Amino acid sequence: MMTRQFTSFDPPRRTLMGPGPSDVYPRVLAALSRPTIGHLDPAFSDMMEETKALLQYALRTGNPLTLPISAPGSAGMEACFVNLVEPGEEVIVCVNGVFGGRMSENVLRAGGVPVVVEDAWGMPVDPQRLEDALRAHPSARLVAFVQAETSTGVLSDVRLLTEIAHRHDALVIVDAVTAVGGCALEVDAWEVDAIYTGTQKCLSAPPGLSPVSFGPRAVERLQSRRRPVQSWFLDHTLVMGYWGDGARRSYHHTAPINSLYALHEALLLLWEEGLEQAWERHARLHRGLRAGLEALGIEFLVAPEHRLPQLNTLRIPEKIDDATVRGRLLSEHGLEIGAGLGALAGKVWRIGLMGHSARSENVFTCLAALEQVLGELGAPIEPGAAVDAAGSALQETPLAQSA
Amino acid sequence: MMTRQFTSFDPPRRTLMGPGPSDVYPRVLAALSRPTIGHLDPAFSDMMEETKALLQYALRTGNPLTLPISAPGSAGMEACFVNLVEPGEEVIVCVNGVFGGRMSENVLRAGGVPVVVEDAWGMPVDPQRLEDALRAHPSARLVAFVQAETSTGVLSDVRLLTEIAHRHDALVIVDAVTAVGGCALEVDAWEVDAIYTGTQKCLSAPPGLSPVSFGPRAVERLQSRRRPVQSWFLDHTLVMGYWGDGARRSYHHTAPINSLYALHEALLLLWEEGLEQAWERHARLHRGLRAGLEALGIEFLVAPEHRLPQLNTLRIPEKIDDATVRGRLLSEHGLEIGAGLGALAGKVWRIGLMGHSARSENVFTCLAALEQVLGELGAPIEPGAAVDAAGSALQETPLAQSA
Repeated sequence: MMTRQFTSFDPPRRTLMGPGPSDVYPRVLAALSRPTIGHLDPAFSDMMEETKALLQYALRTGNPLTLPISAPGSAGMEACFVNLVEPGEEVIVCVNGVFGGRMSENVLRAGGVPVVVEDAWGMPVDPQRLEDALRAHPSARLVAFVQAETSTGVLSDVRLLTEIAHRHDALVIVDAVTAVGGCALEVDAWEVDAIYTGTQKCLSAPPGLSPVSFGPRAVERLQSRRRPVQSWFLDHTLVMGYWGDGARRSYHHTAPINSLYALHEALLLLWEEGLEQAWERHARLHRGLRAGLEALGIEFLVAPEHRLPQLNTLRIPEKIDDATVRGRLLSEHGLEIGAGLGALAGKVWRIGLMGHSARSENVFTCLAALEQVLGELGAPIEPGAAVDAAGSALQETPLAQSA
Repeated sequence: MMTRQFTSFDPPRRTLMGPGPSDVYPRVLAALSRPTIGHLDPAFSDMMEETKALLQYALRTGNPLTLPISAPGSAGMEACFVNLVEPGEEVIVCVNGVFGGRMSENVLRAGGVPVVVEDAWGMPVDPQRLEDALRAHPSARLVAFVQAETSTGVLSDVRLLTEIAHRHDALVIVDAVTAVGGCALEVDAWEVDAIYTGTQKCLSAPPGLSPVSFGPRAVERLQSRRRPVQSWFLDHTLVMGYWGDGARRSYHHTAPINSLYALHEALLLLWEEGLEQAWERHARLHRGLRAGLEALGIEFLVAPEHRLPQLNTLRIPEKIDDATVRGRLLSEHGLEIGAGLGALAGKVWRIGLMGHSARSENVFTCLAALEQVLGELGAPIEPGAAVDAAGSALQETPLAQSA
């Protein structure tokens, strides 16, 4: 007999304003716990079809190959690289944060040769440097970059970077993990070739799945591969058969049934709100948070024109200890904000306003908690100023009624 | 605006007696929908530690490298192969069904050279053939086989096959997806080197995660690799850092928080019942189902000594149409049983008694539904005989009280 004792896990109640997971919609949690059915059940196939259609809506695409990978965003990233890179191929990877670096690692593991184009952390991907790299490496047939760098809170220009890549006959892989639902993204209009995202950011479902979409050029590239995809689990030529036309569905792996219930519900909520309305909501809440943070004297890492509304990266004020503040926010206020990653560890905080976390209650909760903790640590703070400033900013820009 | 309409998905209520997913425990569904917290939250780290300890209990192992891969069983399989196979290495793969075949495919994708040892579908892996293969291929350092073949319902002898492999200085990878919780398995006592399982079989959690355990020889092999693991997502040298000692946890990917709540609760239920009691329960329910099926004149594919109690593979009676029966069981009785896979498609049914599905109610539900549907299709069936036979068999072998 084991002497150790175990009991059911009852998680503490948190307000999630880090870089993800974000607060999950109550309707999504309810969907998650509906009774499990078989992954080959006709009712489940119908739900898969709806999920595909709702994903196409969220990504603004008609790509038939649009489906959730049965694993987190990192696996969605890997799926794009192992399906589209062949050994020995040069791939231009734009790196302006942690996730660009991870893309470069994925190219290596897939046997490719990464050509890294670096930009400073906190800056967007520079279109001119991409152009230069494509000129210097004319054999590169693939370009990869991150739309919304989760490590820095920076937005890069997907439309322009894709145009440049296409002028040089290269396809693009876009990391949209933190982007989808939180800021403008048009897969078809911007001619994005391959894109992956996550469920736990602006879609506000639990983490664990990674929606991926391949456009016609990516599908053609996949179908003309010289060697099989190195991953069996992520091989799109097989996964397609499983997520393909319901009548001809072939068994590949056992789908994560309940997680897919949750994703379906989260996408449904986005569809009910309207995609553009969701983008606008994130922008508005960002303005409220920003006004409050400025009243607290906290500065943004990123210039205004490159900031992600859904992920706010802030310089930690001088003489303030990172871990102390985050620890007290968590233990005293039940509030999670994000630490800096990599080169920014200890230097920044990341405050997410994603999906269900992008609500005025969360903005006020966060500002009030920060005011209290920073004030107690001796920062020069005018009581109530942050919440007032946020309230005014939110009043000035009410949400437009949906059409 | 899209003209298509979408609504929340309300799954039909099913009794799941296929090859998995099995019926999920209500307590597990309740755990699944608890509020999401951050994957770096200290409370979540504590739960990860408990989950590891409960997994070690379920697998009868003290292996520190015991953790759930954040993706379904197929990814757990791939994790074992990409971490333990290096390009050019011969791997002996014992194939006696679909999942052995998939292992062989995984060896290929990892750059290895599979040496396939085939046994007939419906037969266990033959120890003598493994011995012969190891003699013929002395450079092979790895042997892979399936303990509980989900496609055929056959149990192979893990202890003996592992002994043989070790005598030839080869490590073993064991597929225990359908085994864990449903039949005896002793990772440490049998000296299994690497093993993977799934959540949706005898653990009765939803599908989506794959617990994996590596013993000391496998860890040594991993640490002495000449080349990096080809998958970033499944690279155990990185995943270990994330699931390692709580204090030194390093970010790898965002864990599937809620799915892990569910796995923790499912493992807790197994721990509360007791592992040996769970094995005994599966054996007992199997005896009840078998008595009933024999009363219906339905024959098993597998000889009694090689049958899995938790997965019963049955020859479809002559003149009975496979799809008609399964369709009517599903639509008229809400009962899912499994079809044959691969070479057995159209020839067998697979009836699972796994985890929460291994209950006397399920045995009676299944037998009564089969009696009704087969009777209506003209099979010569004596009314009530199957349920009576199952009831008698279950009465003869009450569950022993736990010690």
